[in-house]
Amino acid sequence: MTFADLHAEVQQFYARQMHLLDAGDGEGWAGTFTADGVFAMPSAPEPVRGRPTLAAGVHEAAAKLRAAGEVHRHIVGMVAVEPLPDGTLKVDSYAQIVATPRGGHPRLHLMCVCHDLLVREKGQLRVRERRVTRDDRP
Amino acid sequence: MTFADLHAEVQQFYARQMHLLDAGDGEGWAGTFTADGVFAMPSAPEPVRGRPTLAAGVHEAAAKLRAAGEVHRHIVGMVAVEPLPDGTLKVDSYAQIVATPRGGHPRLHLMCVCHDLLVREKGQLRVRERRVTRDDRP
Amino acid sequence: MTFADLHAEVQQFYARQMHLLDAGDGEGWAGTFTADGVFAMPSAPEPVRGRPTLAAGVHEAAAKLRAAGEVHRHIVGMVAVEPLPDGTLKVDSYAQIVATPRGGHPRLHLMCVCHDLLVREKGQLRVRERRVTRDDRP
Repeated sequence: MTFADLHAEVQQFYARQMHLLDAGDGEGWAGTFTADGVFAMPSAPEPVRGRPTLAAGVHEAAAKLRAAGEVHRHIVGMVAVEPLPDGTLKVDSYAQIVATPRGGHPRLHLMCVCHDLLVREKGQLRVRERRVTRDDRP
Repeated sequence: MTFADLHAEVQQFYARQMHLLDAGDGEGWAGTFTADGVFAMPSAPEPVRGRPTLAAGVHEAAAKLRAAGEVHRHIVGMVAVEPLPDGTLKVDSYAQIVATPRGGHPRLHLMCVCHDLLVREKGQLRVRERRVTRDDRP
Repeated sequence: MTFADLHAEVQQFYARQMHLLDAGDGEGWAGTFTADGVFAMPSAPEPVRGRPTLAAGVHEAAAKLRAAGEVHRHIVGMVAVEPLPDGTLKVDSYAQIVATPRGGHPRLHLMCVCHDLLVREKGQLRVRERRVTRDDRP
């Protein structure tokens, strides 16, 4: 497997993962994490662990957005892929979150940095660990 | 042809296509569609079909931007490529449109989702069908 | 080396280069240019040349941002890679610069176009020449 193969797969992984997230597909999104996957985000006091909790977080966020009449898009860019000796992938990226109210103007809601550890399970990339920081809370 | 080959070609295709669009090169941009290519966008009541009409739309938009003293940039991201059994490519992506007035501050003008059907003609990728939705008009 | 190999390498190059820049790592960033690399940017009256001067510019900018309590992110997208006959790479891209004040909201600070000439030195891509234009100063 060349670096180009790996890079394309990682880019595709993030595209699909963010499409699932922004569509509010909690189970689909949680399935892109390992069963015991961990997501440490700035808005939660403790890291979230495991697919049921990850999925529930997406459903909750989607319900809030529907109630507020807003659409969110997660746009991941500047993806740096570093294959580690143990076969896992360290991936650092930037994530813009864009919010658009129904009938209104889009705005850049949050600017984040995403530190992932990706592993391969049954041929598929999955997040074992994700740590996200917000630029407004350095 | 590996998935990496395809992925790189698709990314390059969008980069060039958006450069042509933002430069106001109507003919160049229309040439990235098939001769009977269709573009369904939210701001038009009917889908636009065929290169002459596609090119005319770009020229009209470019003239308006020049008159308004604004530059627009189309930034496509989160590109998910799905090769279909018939050899065409289903590509879903996000598109940010950034507007910058001369001497002013850039703003996120529109947040869109782009659903493309790409085909290969004489070795080149082309859009047979493009459907764009705006997040402010769900 | 296929186009996919080259494309992945270029994407990775920009991701790492922007991470170094936004981290204020002047020497690391300057090391992604050739020893006599040139950077022509709109905010400077003359092009900046050579690693020491490039690094000093990053340190100065980072100090200003720290004093202002802001974080900047450079997000490069729509990367079009054109291999030239002499083995160099002409790369045109868009660059969003996002600024986030501590405790505040992120904003799109600048929208730029980046024209690079990349060369390979000891197996690594490096910028020999970079010319950046700002959309607000056409």
